Amino acid sequence: MRLESPALDPAALDAQCANALRFLAIDAVEQANSGHPGMPMGMAEIAVALWRRHLRHDPADPQWPDRDRFVLSNGHGSMLLYALLHLTGYDLPLDELKRFRQLHSKTPGHPEHGLTPGVETTTGPLGQGLTNAVGMALAEKLLAHTFNRPGHDIVDHRTWVFLGDGCLMEGVSHEAASFAGVQRLSKLVALWDDNRISIDGDVGGWFGDDTPQRFRAYGWNVIEGVEGHEVEAVDRAIREALANAENDVGPTLICCRTTIGHGSPARAGTAAVHGAPLGRDEVAATRAALGWPHAPFDVPAEVRAAFDARDAGAARRCEWNARFAAYRSQWPDAAKEFERRVAGDLPADFAEQADAFLAEVQGERPNVATRKASQQAIGRLAQALPELLGGSADLTHSNLTDWPGCGAVRADAGGRHINWGVREFGMAAALNGVALHGGFVPFGATFLVFSDYARNAIRMSALLRQRVVHVMTHDSIGLGEDGPTHQPVEHIPSLRLIPGLDVWRPCDAAETQAAWNAAVMRTDGPSLLALSRQNLPTQARSAGQLAAIARGGYVLAEAGNGKPAVVLIATGSEVELAMAARARLADDGIHARVVSMPCTSRFDAQDADWRDAVLPPGVPRVAVEAARPDGWWKYVAGRDGRTRGEVVGIERFGESAPAAELAALFGLTPERVADAARRLIAG
Amino acid sequence: MRLESPALDPAALDAQCANALRFLAIDAVEQANSGHPGMPMGMAEIAVALWRRHLRHDPADPQWPDRDRFVLSNGHGSMLLYALLHLTGYDLPLDELKRFRQLHSKTPGHPEHGLTPGVETTTGPLGQGLTNAVGMALAEKLLAHTFNRPGHDIVDHRTWVFLGDGCLMEGVSHEAASFAGVQRLSKLVALWDDNRISIDGDVGGWFGDDTPQRFRAYGWNVIEGVEGHEVEAVDRAIREALANAENDVGPTLICCRTTIGHGSPARAGTAAVHGAPLGRDEVAATRAALGWPHAPFDVPAEVRAAFDARDAGAARRCEWNARFAAYRSQWPDAAKEFERRVAGDLPADFAEQADAFLAEVQGERPNVATRKASQQAIGRLAQALPELLGGSADLTHSNLTDWPGCGAVRADAGGRHINWGVREFGMAAALNGVALHGGFVPFGATFLVFSDYARNAIRMSALLRQRVVHVMTHDSIGLGEDGPTHQPVEHIPSLRLIPGLDVWRPCDAAETQAAWNAAVMRTDGPSLLALSRQNLPTQARSAGQLAAIARGGYVLAEAGNGKPAVVLIATGSEVELAMAARARLADDGIHARVVSMPCTSRFDAQDADWRDAVLPPGVPRVAVEAARPDGWWKYVAGRDGRTRGEVVGIERFGESAPAAELAALFGLTPERVADAARRLIAG
Repeated sequence: MRLESPALDPAALDAQCANALRFLAIDAVEQANSGHPGMPMGMAEIAVALWRRHLRHDPADPQWPDRDRFVLSNGHGSMLLYALLHLTGYDLPLDELKRFRQLHSKTPGHPEHGLTPGVETTTGPLGQGLTNAVGMALAEKLLAHTFNRPGHDIVDHRTWVFLGDGCLMEGVSHEAASFAGVQRLSKLVALWDDNRISIDGDVGGWFGDDTPQRFRAYGWNVIEGVEGHEVEAVDRAIREALANAENDVGPTLICCRTTIGHGSPARAGTAAVHGAPLGRDEVAATRAALGWPHAPFDVPAEVRAAFDARDAGAARRCEWNARFAAYRSQWPDAAKEFERRVAGDLPADFAEQADAFLAEVQGERPNVATRKASQQAIGRLAQALPELLGGSADLTHSNLTDWPGCGAVRADAGGRHINWGVREFGMAAALNGVALHGGFVPFGATFLVFSDYARNAIRMSALLRQRVVHVMTHDSIGLGEDGPTHQPVEHIPSLRLIPGLDVWRPCDAAETQAAWNAAVMRTDGPSLLALSRQNLPTQARSAGQLAAIARGGYVLAEAGNGKPAVVLIATGSEVELAMAARARLADDGIHARVVSMPCTSRFDAQDADWRDAVLPPGVPRVAVEAARPDGWWKYVAGRDGRTRGEVVGIERFGESAPAAELAALFGLTPERVADAARRLIAG
Repeated sequence: MRLESPALDPAALDAQCANALRFLAIDAVEQANSGHPGMPMGMAEIAVALWRRHLRHDPADPQWPDRDRFVLSNGHGSMLLYALLHLTGYDLPLDELKRFRQLHSKTPGHPEHGLTPGVETTTGPLGQGLTNAVGMALAEKLLAHTFNRPGHDIVDHRTWVFLGDGCLMEGVSHEAASFAGVQRLSKLVALWDDNRISIDGDVGGWFGDDTPQRFRAYGWNVIEGVEGHEVEAVDRAIREALANAENDVGPTLICCRTTIGHGSPARAGTAAVHGAPLGRDEVAATRAALGWPHAPFDVPAEVRAAFDARDAGAARRCEWNARFAAYRSQWPDAAKEFERRVAGDLPADFAEQADAFLAEVQGERPNVATRKASQQAIGRLAQALPELLGGSADLTHSNLTDWPGCGAVRADAGGRHINWGVREFGMAAALNGVALHGGFVPFGATFLVFSDYARNAIRMSALLRQRVVHVMTHDSIGLGEDGPTHQPVEHIPSLRLIPGLDVWRPCDAAETQAAWNAAVMRTDGPSLLALSRQNLPTQARSAGQLAAIARGGYVLAEAGNGKPAVVLIATGSEVELAMAARARLADDGIHARVVSMPCTSRFDAQDADWRDAVLPPGVPRVAVEAARPDGWWKYVAGRDGRTRGEVVGIERFGESAPAAELAALFGLTPERVADAARRLIAG
């Protein structure tokens, strides 16, 4: 039986709203027998204060470009977000909440962008949600700088983040918060769930930071001691944060004192309520303690009405539409460009331009390092794509990521090249946020070996299917004297294992341009470019071969007689080496084909005809790459049982010495490749 | 011609000492035409203050257990350390400095532990040196707690760190400093080279932290505004830090204002001096500006004498020997145990005990998750090995790393289990420091997917060849509802690519115990254990099979007729699945062998006879693992051109759902494996 309640005063209604969030979380976790009730129970009032009073969004249009962004950095509390999306009017029916954590529901264990309307990013790996949000706030600021006109702020929204102690302990929170401070991202507001509990228990034994002092050291505004279970107190703090945004005095951290699992008589304030269902008895006890008589998943009409944001959202959207129409009438070109940018479309003639860039490079045939070729490619693309937003983690002149006139992104200036500082993880995770926000094609660079530092954010680029370009230079022992700490012998094959990430290792300037073209034209995921420190000659190519680079693997040099006795497969700097081996073999009357394979995932995506034409079954194969060889057996040792193969690679860590000496030491020589081919042919 | 100078007053001698460091760095970089002169030029006086007045070491005995530890976290300034080691009397002749950055010299681009006497850890990847140092200081504190007796402080040394802005920008510096604060590691002293320059230029645009305030927020003592080019000023700060150590009031950060490339007329204070030779003219100008008339690599005798620490070191060592002799006479067993522990030797009867543990587990045949089996193994080992030091990055009750009576490591108590907080990278890098310090066999745990966060520190465990055990639970989609952010589909194969890292993925409790035994008995590198969330039955094994686990790959179940038509290779949870597929195939009259391959690197290290006996050439093979399959082609598709193979794995990211549903969705079923085998046999 549905209980009818008398009309509530505003405070009582807020309390009921918070309890509705709490019990949707409790009941969904209970039904799934899996999940995290503690955080939604602890942050319910904070969510009410933000989502009922301040968040500017339109549940009917989750893509509205000027919506506020909301990020749940403590993503394990996903049910809080699902409850909010459901109650405010997003296309997330109650049935989906009842299927929490079930196969193919829209309510997975952690929030997944692209699956659930209103989920702005995928969170769960702690600290990265906050960092995504920093990227979003940066994108907002730069997009506003580009498109707003006096009196016409068509870009003017805020980025809100919920985060917990776990996010604050993670190192990436330091990188993100420090960067947000120096860039003065004033429209970024983080609400900290200060409950003093993490999974191992009371944080006192392992987390003693004075977090307000820490954030002040970063240049944030800190609002301390907010009672997180009082909607009015949180509301006041949020209004102060909005004033900070208005006055452009830097980002704001609101420190909310809360109790994890608030309302659970036996488990509130303990780690036990973090990540496990309360259990039938404790659910009942919590219902009694909080005075919530409703059945599981039953939300009183008054609460539903109080949360419903559809009318206000439509009005807000409508009002923005009118403002955008006024903008369009004054600056029609800018309006059109804005729409193109936020839709993520490239300019109509871009594919043509990209082909022209590629033909130009092939015609010039420069002998440059692929990092230098990358800089030249960036220079070309930056002219064609104003959305290209570059940067480096404090290695700009090593990674070669800047271009003439790019301008530095600073707190008071909107350039197009970001000095991220020595913050590889923060950079990569923030790039995901920039891409998610829209309006930009972002890239960021470091040494390939330090992709390790950023690795989970690169993984998240792929899981999020975002167009982010990770530029990684100094791609093997070719970097020479800096030694094994800086020589990425295992990174190329290991990055290839991340599903959905295109790893490009171009062999020359033409393949570098082709890789860049592919990366910016790809709309369903990230690309990573592994680039050389040392010069590499541009290989000769027909128009057909030039076009074939995009297929990831193609015949770069056919056997002299057209009938290869052996196929030499290579990537990057080892293509030149394979070509030299081919010449040596030719001296012995052995006809070898050279296949350049700059992107194995693109090659894998070709049909069997292409793959068999490039790698003819039955013909012996030698793969060579200055990295751990294991992954190449997939290509050299045919599953057909009749193709023999060998791999020339590097089995151990590098050494500090001039690069040429290292190539000899590690056997990356034409002679070794030719010998391997001779042995295979001899059987 | 050698110039003779009159005897110098102490201040002038200090200045000459600093210049000697400067010019050894300048000249070595010049000779190598590669390297980083800026930092040694900027930190020379700081180095003089520490190394001439405070560092307690014995150049003749770099292994002396009670020596102070010195860590160059800004490892690119390696020439500063080499100059110090050479001048103070370590076995590092001037000829080695002249071969800076050359092949097989003892002076590689970045300092490498194990290669150069006196280099306590390998640095270069920024932030990790500081974190290693935190591990060293923790080890010192815990070892002192265990072995010191009233009036007999046989463990009483300090850990000193040099670090730069780059280290402070890295996220891991947050994890390390926060942890050091809450653990009150008072004998840790960091000296910050505050030169306001990083590679991209003046840090103002990307690094605005109030670092002193930040470190105070972590509970550090901060000494601000020290003039880094005045030896006396640095000396005063160090004395204050030593008082802090004495009073046990937490770690100390000394903020030294310096000029990068100090002394270079044209380049001091600019990024240009960071990572490139000065060039002949600027070297000459710097010689003139600093009044250093000496030829390259020429160090005046007075300066050599001033640095020489051999006599003082021998006296200090001798004094400690006397104190240790007194200790031994009172507590002979403790002294013996101390010597065993710091030598890194296991107890004499350990191998026997390890065998007994393994037999015990095999006899019990429990049906438990391998994470649970790991906890039981830890419990057994912890009794046998008091040096075992455990921990988890805030997932103790998920990773199952604690054991009865382990006790929590806290600022005021010396237990054996560390709550690292949500700090995966910091944990892993600190574990390297604990292992380097000696006296412990450390392990730390998180979810396997978050090995990404720690990845470069795991790599450094391998490069450092340290006995560290990385415990990684929830090893694939078997974790279920937490979804793709938490399901490590690519991590096992990608970690196998790190040279020197043994990755174990045990299939049951017996293999888990065997993996643990191997990990703690390994003396030349780290091991990583990938463990299941879900229960796995213990397989039947003969004594021979039980012993064969240590070989990394072995026949777990022979074909019914002893003549396999197909070999099924599996790891971890998929061994059970392969056994079920074998049974299905047997129903069809197909005789299949099951090979369990818990550690591919160990299997690779076996001789060809073993490998061919396990995987007979010519017999078709199916590998199955709940991860990206690419790496398995090395094992299933023989390079001989006559073995056919197939791999059953996971090509894409996981999903959020109950684990059993995911196994079916991703085709990790006995039927799919059996089908693959049938297809191969059918040809």
